[in-house]
Amino acid sequence: MSHPWDDLFTNVHLATMAGGYGEIRDASIAVKDGRIAWIGKRGEEPYKAKRVHDGDGNWLTPGLVDCHTHIVHAGNRSDEFEARLNGATYEDIARAGGGIMSTVRATRAASPDELLRQSLPRVESLVKEGVTTIEIKSGYGLTLEDEAKMLRVARRVAEMLPVSVATTFLGAHALPPEYAGRPDEYIDAICERMLPALVKEGLADAVDAFCERIGFTNQQAERVFAAADALGLPVKLHAEQLSDQQGAQLVARYQGLSADHLEHLTLEGIAAMAAAGTVAVLLPGAYYFLRDSTPPPVAALREAGVRMAVATDCNPGTSPMTSILLAMNMACTLWRLTPQEALAGVTIHAARALGLHEQIGSLEIGKKADFALWDIARPADLSYGIGFNPCRGTVRAGKLNTF
Amino acid sequence: MSHPWDDLFTNVHLATMAGGYGEIRDASIAVKDGRIAWIGKRGEEPYKAKRVHDGDGNWLTPGLVDCHTHIVHAGNRSDEFEARLNGATYEDIARAGGGIMSTVRATRAASPDELLRQSLPRVESLVKEGVTTIEIKSGYGLTLEDEAKMLRVARRVAEMLPVSVATTFLGAHALPPEYAGRPDEYIDAICERMLPALVKEGLADAVDAFCERIGFTNQQAERVFAAADALGLPVKLHAEQLSDQQGAQLVARYQGLSADHLEHLTLEGIAAMAAAGTVAVLLPGAYYFLRDSTPPPVAALREAGVRMAVATDCNPGTSPMTSILLAMNMACTLWRLTPQEALAGVTIHAARALGLHEQIGSLEIGKKADFALWDIARPADLSYGIGFNPCRGTVRAGKLNTF
Ligand SMILES: [Zn+2]
Ligand SMILES: [Zn+2]
Repeated sequence: MSHPWDDLFTNVHLATMAGGYGEIRDASIAVKDGRIAWIGKRGEEPYKAKRVHDGDGNWLTPGLVDCHTHIVHAGNRSDEFEARLNGATYEDIARAGGGIMSTVRATRAASPDELLRQSLPRVESLVKEGVTTIEIKSGYGLTLEDEAKMLRVARRVAEMLPVSVATTFLGAHALPPEYAGRPDEYIDAICERMLPALVKEGLADAVDAFCERIGFTNQQAERVFAAADALGLPVKLHAEQLSDQQGAQLVARYQGLSADHLEHLTLEGIAAMAAAGTVAVLLPGAYYFLRDSTPPPVAALREAGVRMAVATDCNPGTSPMTSILLAMNMACTLWRLTPQEALAGVTIHAARALGLHEQIGSLEIGKKADFALWDIARPADLSYGIGFNPCRGTVRAGKLNTF
Repeated sequence: MSHPWDDLFTNVHLATMAGGYGEIRDASIAVKDGRIAWIGKRGEEPYKAKRVHDGDGNWLTPGLVDCHTHIVHAGNRSDEFEARLNGATYEDIARAGGGIMSTVRATRAASPDELLRQSLPRVESLVKEGVTTIEIKSGYGLTLEDEAKMLRVARRVAEMLPVSVATTFLGAHALPPEYAGRPDEYIDAICERMLPALVKEGLADAVDAFCERIGFTNQQAERVFAAADALGLPVKLHAEQLSDQQGAQLVARYQGLSADHLEHLTLEGIAAMAAAGTVAVLLPGAYYFLRDSTPPPVAALREAGVRMAVATDCNPGTSPMTSILLAMNMACTLWRLTPQEALAGVTIHAARALGLHEQIGSLEIGKKADFALWDIARPADLSYGIGFNPCRGTVRAGKLNTF
């Protein structure tokens, strides 16, 4: 074989993230059929490639993974942001029709094309920062039709931009006004009507719920999980953000992919997650934007060996954040993750939070050739900068996109 | 006259920032000889222009002004950032040669071309966010030769990118090792040798000092101010960041342009600034990065009528921030500025902090045609987003740059 490889990326330093971190300086990485075919020191390549790309001494990491977003939505809530800073209370804003229901109304009213048009620039902001896989949740439709619309738009994002999309059905995000006072009946609708229909159309890769005093109870979340389980879908949960609802234990009981937020996570919850291999998805953007003062128990999670992912939580109400690098910086600055933990949190552990850790998230032979290229002196630079984007391009499934 | 105007920007909404805020929807703005010639409602233009630019319904603001940066420097300090997160103490880092002196060593060692090469991407990050004027301080050279090198590089930045540069001599930033134990002799050198030489070469537009227990005393800062005053240069001060040194009163006494940081500013300092018309430059990036918990007295400054500017403080040790939009978001989120205050803080009040408020910072006839164009629904969107850049281009002195 004269050309067994399709592409060789050479003259790069690698942060492989295999087994947590792993550095190979002055390296090359080969791609065949969209997958990683070889990794090693530059000059030691056993084969030749059809195309050779000089990385110019830049760093190459796995393509970044933003594993928790609500990035498909219509409108924004800058009016509420401004009103609050001008002295309006949460009650004033609720009376004026604000809060999550304003996003539900705008999302329901938007055509699929309009929803896509509004969402793409936000996703593009992440893509330009090296993101090659993004999770997108529904949860602003709250009817079968509108949830399906959101998830179809999420699928279309992957056709428009060089990014893979993992969809999550979050019907149990908030109680729609049509079900006011009847949350259990809404859970019935989710389990019996919405979820089966979405699964039939192939729109949901996972199922999520918002378990909180202002969301759904642990019992209601469990009913959603049982329905997901019966349909063969993995689960995850918005858990312990504002109070301990023992959501982590619930996720662990269902061998869930991740429990997310976790500011009020208990030692019992940590132990359950550790035993189940559930990933802790940390969302510093919401903590920052809500001016929260209770950090998630990072040291205890670390000690228990729970894998920590970091994500933007991009959403219009509590984290209008479209920078994964800034999420990394906040995780380090506000919560004292190390830069290596932050990088693992947006690569290998984020991949695991989506159940995709055998396909993406690290540089290992056989995995998908999803890379990000960085003009940096060392990987810690990615977490250190505040609002600086050193990304020079990405490779997705072997295909190069330069910025 | 058939073409009295050079350019007309039409189909835009204006946030003029004249007198603080000021909105004109569905407007046009005309440029002649690099200055604003007319502002008004679209369709009411009394003349025609050689070139007409359709703003596509976007918002047009004054070009943003980042009025406090140390953006020209060599190296970064991500190694210290990482070491601290891995448990190193400040003493460990100092023993290993870290801290500001590591930046001084790197900056002294860098050739002018290398210093420029490293600094340009940071400035470019700001330019892409609508910044058309940036202040750049010296202060990592600490010898006449190296301070001059920094300031010459700062001047060259303005030749390389579509941005105007205001330079500030900050020789009194830190005590160079050559003067260990002899701070007053270093102040002598600043006043008698360095400052006059830099002024002669036209390298300094203003003079600054770091007045703090770990910097220079109020008396030492005053000696620098007196020397600046004698040479006709305006002054500003790093004041009250970590403790009250009555720096604000000192600046006010010299009719200084601004006092910057101000977390420990007293009511006496506020009163002095209000009386002198000194601008309060707020630097939320350093507060965030240092995990400070004492905010500057925003409500008291507002009440006293002190104008508040917002800047990045871009520097490798305490604010590696290259996003002015993020500085706006942090000012709102962490310190409760309103979005209008944040926008005034990076336009008209930032211009005043540089003594340039009669030339730039607002959309008014006769001012320089420096604009930023934004794909946003309302100006508050600029402060609301976290890591999202809606800038579509800038106009500097009438010349269009699209991104
Ligand atoms: Zn969420
Ligand atoms: Zn400074």
